[in-house]
Amino acid sequence: MERTKFAPLSGFVPLTPEQQAKFDQLKDLVARVHHAYGFRSLDLPLIYRTEALLAKSGGETDKQIFRIDKGGDDGAAGLALRFDLTVPLAMFIANNERNLAFPLKVSQIGRSYRGEKVQRGREREFYQCDIDVIARGKLAVAYDAEVVAGVAEIYRQMGIGGVTIRIGNRRLLGGFLQSLGLADTAGVMAVIDDAEKVSGEELRRRFSELGVGDGEIAQIERLISFSGNLAEFKASEWLAGDNELFQQGRSELIAVMEQLAARGVNEAVIDLQIVRGLDYYTGTVFETRLDAMPEIGSIGSGGRYDNLVANYSAEPFEGVGLSIGLTRIFNSLLEAGKLPELPLAEKVLLIPVEPAQIEFCLKTSAELRARSEMVDVYLQGGKLDKALSYAAKSGASTAIIIGEAEVAGKPLERRVLY
Amino acid sequence: MERTKFAPLSGFVPLTPEQQAKFDQLKDLVARVHHAYGFRSLDLPLIYRTEALLAKSGGETDKQIFRIDKGGDDGAAGLALRFDLTVPLAMFIANNERNLAFPLKVSQIGRSYRGEKVQRGREREFYQCDIDVIARGKLAVAYDAEVVAGVAEIYRQMGIGGVTIRIGNRRLLGGFLQSLGLADTAGVMAVIDDAEKVSGEELRRRFSELGVGDGEIAQIERLISFSGNLAEFKASEWLAGDNELFQQGRSELIAVMEQLAARGVNEAVIDLQIVRGLDYYTGTVFETRLDAMPEIGSIGSGGRYDNLVANYSAEPFEGVGLSIGLTRIFNSLLEAGKLPELPLAEKVLLIPVEPAQIEFCLKTSAELRARSEMVDVYLQGGKLDKALSYAAKSGASTAIIIGEAEVAGKPLERRVLY
Repeated sequence: MERTKFAPLSGFVPLTPEQQAKFDQLKDLVARVHHAYGFRSLDLPLIYRTEALLAKSGGETDKQIFRIDKGGDDGAAGLALRFDLTVPLAMFIANNERNLAFPLKVSQIGRSYRGEKVQRGREREFYQCDIDVIARGKLAVAYDAEVVAGVAEIYRQMGIGGVTIRIGNRRLLGGFLQSLGLADTAGVMAVIDDAEKVSGEELRRRFSELGVGDGEIAQIERLISFSGNLAEFKASEWLAGDNELFQQGRSELIAVMEQLAARGVNEAVIDLQIVRGLDYYTGTVFETRLDAMPEIGSIGSGGRYDNLVANYSAEPFEGVGLSIGLTRIFNSLLEAGKLPELPLAEKVLLIPVEPAQIEFCLKTSAELRARSEMVDVYLQGGKLDKALSYAAKSGASTAIIIGEAEVAGKPLERRVLY
Repeated sequence: MERTKFAPLSGFVPLTPEQQAKFDQLKDLVARVHHAYGFRSLDLPLIYRTEALLAKSGGETDKQIFRIDKGGDDGAAGLALRFDLTVPLAMFIANNERNLAFPLKVSQIGRSYRGEKVQRGREREFYQCDIDVIARGKLAVAYDAEVVAGVAEIYRQMGIGGVTIRIGNRRLLGGFLQSLGLADTAGVMAVIDDAEKVSGEELRRRFSELGVGDGEIAQIERLISFSGNLAEFKASEWLAGDNELFQQGRSELIAVMEQLAARGVNEAVIDLQIVRGLDYYTGTVFETRLDAMPEIGSIGSGGRYDNLVANYSAEPFEGVGLSIGLTRIFNSLLEAGKLPELPLAEKVLLIPVEPAQIEFCLKTSAELRARSEMVDVYLQGGKLDKALSYAAKSGASTAIIIGEAEVAGKPLERRVLY
């Protein structure tokens, strides 16, 4: 078969064993933090009815979705691969609302699929690490702080340098826009979402296109340029107003920042420019930058959604979530040579000099495994050179060569391989 | 949206958080054993060119495969979801042969997809746990014993009762059939593969259909009825013959059993009826039954394949593998109420009696997490009843109620929840 037929597909690139070990370290670290915070794992199916998957989404997702053509005799038309972890969770909750303990704290670490243009760090098959807290009815704002604390904890443990978590609130912003008398608040928010990517001139042009007057534009620019800590936020008297939605958002933002202080999360700042693109966010919104590499974009974002399950259930389910695009982050760090140097688990390789020592090696390996060691035994035989060459590349950290003397009782000597 | 639109698809059934915790225990246990034996993880893509996926397979797989219709503007026609973990591994090796350390010991724990009829325990989306050892060129038969030792270790640690690993050898059987002068040895092996499912009469009828004479049928029946330990195998003088292939298979089988004895694997017996259906096996073949539940079928099977990468590379790669169909086994054990009682990780739930105690709870949670505890904090407020009802269902093993007295210094009391 021609090599091009089985070469990796663009956007579906396998990791080498060395890369995989490092990727799994990060994935396991994220899972450990999720569990340490009391989140419970779900590993939901990858395939759904297309119609149900796209219930909420717009045209972009529709174009990017991987559809399933056929499976088995009874067909599988109308199915597609999930493009995120949130929509499957919403369906799961709608299907199981009577049997779940609320607030439901869910950890999902899994793959999703988007047929988007492959570019720097972005693959078509990628891991996301999500946590969500979902209540039947009202969810306390304290949980907004909990998911933000989760992202802070993950990056502290990863040790890849300082991060900044910028927190905004869509209710505060929406109320502010209402108080300016603007009708198309969703349109204005979409422009604000692009504020960092375009020039000030372009930004003003786009506001104007939506019918926003110069005076209002100036007020919006002032608002979204606010970035600071809770004391600065509270001290900014101009950040007040009697719009009810604005007041609610302001109270939520203050509550979240107070809770974060109580949790010792110093990475968080208020940044009123943060709106997150997705429509389903309603209150708290946040994103996270790696201070040393802001160019890789957000390394953990999310927010509050008050009606995510709305497409599937009449009951209101309030929730808040965090998503980390682990594949993209891993690829960016790998490319930049900045993957964290987490200690790899030790693995010892036993090398029998002659076939006569294999049995002793097997017994030794069983003893070491009983002490929770990871043990490989080189069983190919042949010259020692080959075994040592294997040792250097096999991921083992130490090797023990076992000859007649060792079988006779000579203490085993561990040679460090790297 | 109508409930039927987002209800789980047949063959794609999500686990509840409680089931998922138990499934993950088994999955983690398998991964731990894989790593303890020096296998390195790979987490290969799920999507490939259909043509490459089906290079080796026949009509059945072709019908069961899930094809991808379209993804992104440039289309994704001609793609499909993997139906096992072995074919993707063969492609990966062919694509990376220059950069890998051989023998390559690979652990894969991941999902595959088959559009087959959904039945008892079998899903369309399922986890397999595979280990494979692949050499560039010759692979020592000692590795055949290693993968068998792997399945024994996994079930010992799982503690679901005794298992029996039945080991055969396709070379021995093939050589035997050659020595009987039979031409269609593959056809005869396919009939032998069904021997346990059909009556003796039916079996003889099917052999006859292939042109096997009565005398030869009797000899085949005698051979495949052999089941015993190594001493019994060696003592059976009629299990000899000068056919070269037979002799090679016999030597391999003896070597594997000797190595298993050296490894203390007492679960293994020789059973010459074992051939495994798949064509790509060439030497050692084995399958595993749970002694108390033989009706659930093999809980770990595999064997030696001497040319698996043949469709993708001109170089010969010998290998041996083991596959455990974890989803099917989990579902069978779950249904029978026989899931192993592995200790679940402890999780403590902190419950503030009043909002005033939330801050103290958050500080306590940080201290406990710093000691590697898993800690949930109930942040919804409201009546204590609701919190206690949540506690019972949230997966926490203990709860600590924190009121004014605890904040003032009263020692924290852990209440056991289950």
